[in-house]
Amino acid sequence: MWDCLIYNALVLTMAPGEGPRPQGYVAVQGGKIAVLGQTGAPQDLPPARERLDAQGGLVLPGLVNTHCHAPMVWFRGLADDLSLQEWLNGFICPAGAGWLDADKVYWGALLAAAELIRGGVTTVADGYFYAEAVRQAMADAGLRAVVAQGVVDFPAPGVPDPARNLEAAAAFLDSGAICPDRLTSGVFCHSPYTCGPETLKRAKDLTRARGAPFFLHLAETRQEVADLERRTGLSPGAYLDRLGLLDELTVAVHAVWLPPSDQELLARRGVKVSHCPESNLKLAAGVAPIPALLKLGVTVGLGTDGAGSNNDLDMWGEMSLAARLHKVWGRDPTLLPAPQVLALATREGARVLGLGHLAGVLAIGQAADLIVVAVDQPHLTPLYDPYSHLVYAAGAGDVRSVMVDGRWLLVDRRFTTLNWPALASKVRDYARDLAEFSRRLPRRP
Amino acid sequence: MWDCLIYNALVLTMAPGEGPRPQGYVAVQGGKIAVLGQTGAPQDLPPARERLDAQGGLVLPGLVNTHCHAPMVWFRGLADDLSLQEWLNGFICPAGAGWLDADKVYWGALLAAAELIRGGVTTVADGYFYAEAVRQAMADAGLRAVVAQGVVDFPAPGVPDPARNLEAAAAFLDSGAICPDRLTSGVFCHSPYTCGPETLKRAKDLTRARGAPFFLHLAETRQEVADLERRTGLSPGAYLDRLGLLDELTVAVHAVWLPPSDQELLARRGVKVSHCPESNLKLAAGVAPIPALLKLGVTVGLGTDGAGSNNDLDMWGEMSLAARLHKVWGRDPTLLPAPQVLALATREGARVLGLGHLAGVLAIGQAADLIVVAVDQPHLTPLYDPYSHLVYAAGAGDVRSVMVDGRWLLVDRRFTTLNWPALASKVRDYARDLAEFSRRLPRRP
Repeated sequence: MWDCLIYNALVLTMAPGEGPRPQGYVAVQGGKIAVLGQTGAPQDLPPARERLDAQGGLVLPGLVNTHCHAPMVWFRGLADDLSLQEWLNGFICPAGAGWLDADKVYWGALLAAAELIRGGVTTVADGYFYAEAVRQAMADAGLRAVVAQGVVDFPAPGVPDPARNLEAAAAFLDSGAICPDRLTSGVFCHSPYTCGPETLKRAKDLTRARGAPFFLHLAETRQEVADLERRTGLSPGAYLDRLGLLDELTVAVHAVWLPPSDQELLARRGVKVSHCPESNLKLAAGVAPIPALLKLGVTVGLGTDGAGSNNDLDMWGEMSLAARLHKVWGRDPTLLPAPQVLALATREGARVLGLGHLAGVLAIGQAADLIVVAVDQPHLTPLYDPYSHLVYAAGAGDVRSVMVDGRWLLVDRRFTTLNWPALASKVRDYARDLAEFSRRLPRRP
Repeated sequence: MWDCLIYNALVLTMAPGEGPRPQGYVAVQGGKIAVLGQTGAPQDLPPARERLDAQGGLVLPGLVNTHCHAPMVWFRGLADDLSLQEWLNGFICPAGAGWLDADKVYWGALLAAAELIRGGVTTVADGYFYAEAVRQAMADAGLRAVVAQGVVDFPAPGVPDPARNLEAAAAFLDSGAICPDRLTSGVFCHSPYTCGPETLKRAKDLTRARGAPFFLHLAETRQEVADLERRTGLSPGAYLDRLGLLDELTVAVHAVWLPPSDQELLARRGVKVSHCPESNLKLAAGVAPIPALLKLGVTVGLGTDGAGSNNDLDMWGEMSLAARLHKVWGRDPTLLPAPQVLALATREGARVLGLGHLAGVLAIGQAADLIVVAVDQPHLTPLYDPYSHLVYAAGAGDVRSVMVDGRWLLVDRRFTTLNWPALASKVRDYARDLAEFSRRLPRRP
């Protein structure tokens, strides 16, 4: 008698080399996948305490969002269509420093968790301030998360004195995970242009000593790369390498303006890359050389970035865009085919976060992190190729049910861990306050 | 006593210069918009036979899809990630010629209509073969449509003898619209590389004589533009201009590889442009110079293209991509801000199709073509700026209700004109047959 059985599904395990399994089922026991089977005969299904009929829909690993700033949902649509500098300095930084507190970060992260769950994300990597509050929200929502405390060399939300930024990061790393299997902790050094070399080195030392992941924004804009080269004479990769920052526990986010020598360096050092195409386009940052990085063997995942620059946390949009963008950019319609893109959003994303042993594929003994996608809908009909549909045609609204660690977070689009009306009401109250705060910000010419 | 009242809405009329109207309502009479009002007091709402509470959601003009090949939903996901030539010659053309008939075109178009309606499209411009069957499907679904009969100089579905392609187009134009206000007829000359100069000229003459719209794919790929120049010594715009094809009733679809002189020519002649960014990226065709065309005063709308190359008919994806793509392509994050992109998908799209007097904005006397979008959802919370949400965060799944000509086609996501289970069953039967047919196609190396 298993804990739970999901049946009547077209199962995509996303394990390398494995194809779709029609009439598939998944049995879950103790939060892990216990059986993966196929049968057209209902009487052959294994017994389970709880059963979910996928109604012919797709069952696949939950999506892995490798880069998010969950509490930035507060800034969703507050300031669009601006230059990066105007957006950062005119809105995001002042609102972050002057308005946010731990409670608002908690509620923002919980709102983000609601969106992530409804969009089929089961694992999220988050980098922001008040990381304890983010971690608590992810714990309460039931998501698997890698939560990283932000570090910058200027006053930040919750860290008014930048001289204590590493102290705050160390305290967060050592504060102990709430659910060690499901929530891991890391450090998110914002970037080489907001953190000096000493900060970068010492932050990396903190994570290295603990075997924790280290995230940073790398080479997002051409300007920052030019500035860095002017300042140091080095390319971004060479600069970080000299500081000793490049290893298998480092996740380079964006990685847009990397010369080939830096791409090779990242590959050689085993650095992981988080690709956030929607944010890169919206901020006019550029297009990351993902096909080249993949060819070099770099492990690449997809990320949404924060809702301030996206403006949603929808991995389906990232998949659709990643699959298309590199085709036109590289002038080759065979680049990043659908099955590969779906792998980036699942299996490879889990590997980026060091969770490949646990999540990202459906296999016996892996955590039961899975989603059910309804296909009985006009835009997914007819169905010849489930990978194609998931990447090119499906959307967040098609996710019916979501399980993390064997626990349902969403069943038939209803939350099980979150009270949406109460959350929405709390969020709207705070948002009115932020809108008022934002109106009082000085407008720059 | 009005026919219908939609109330408790944030109304976006999309009329130039008009902002959002909180606590708005729309009264509908005889298929037209009769009243646009605002009140917070329920007792002040006008009386109506039928009432729909928008529950605080957005009410805006229905989306206008300016380029579609509805029956190509049959080929959705059948052949992805291929070169344009391999895709066209290996799959699309043989399947079109060898498998399609009028009945399959009808059912395909009806499936497309279902997807369009659920995605908030109220007007679609379609170009394909067996155009009578497409028109019948759009009539049965209740959509507003401009249906154009396809013309190519080789055997096509329903037109085995290319010498009779213009005869077929003329017969379609003269066959009489089923609902003259809601369904208009046009001609879709596939492209200058599939139609010779005589065909192009005579097809344009057919439409000019009838005041009907003329569509063609223009400068979609770099290769075709190079070939045309080699053959004729002319750029695409100059070539069409010499043939007398450029006027206000011509819609140039794609318009990717247009030199500045052609862009100016299109502007001068009043030619309209349909921009299909998702298809252009997926086929690695290129990026159309939309900001430049807009600057020149060209009327531009958005289109999905067919589901064979997209793979959905989702205008929300087109909006999100259009808003982002030109920012990165033009290296300027202020290009194509959200309100402008939403205008392209509504008001400007209607103008592209010559329907600006009827659809595309909510104004008294315009047709009641409108949609209700639910905002009480995590990914649309908080709500500071509805234009931003609609372009950057909303999706087809957020459309709750859809009205065309004062008639509901979708209410709370349930179809009123279509029987989805019966349609889905019919479609799946045919799709199995197409999959079988496709497997028998010779595979090219």
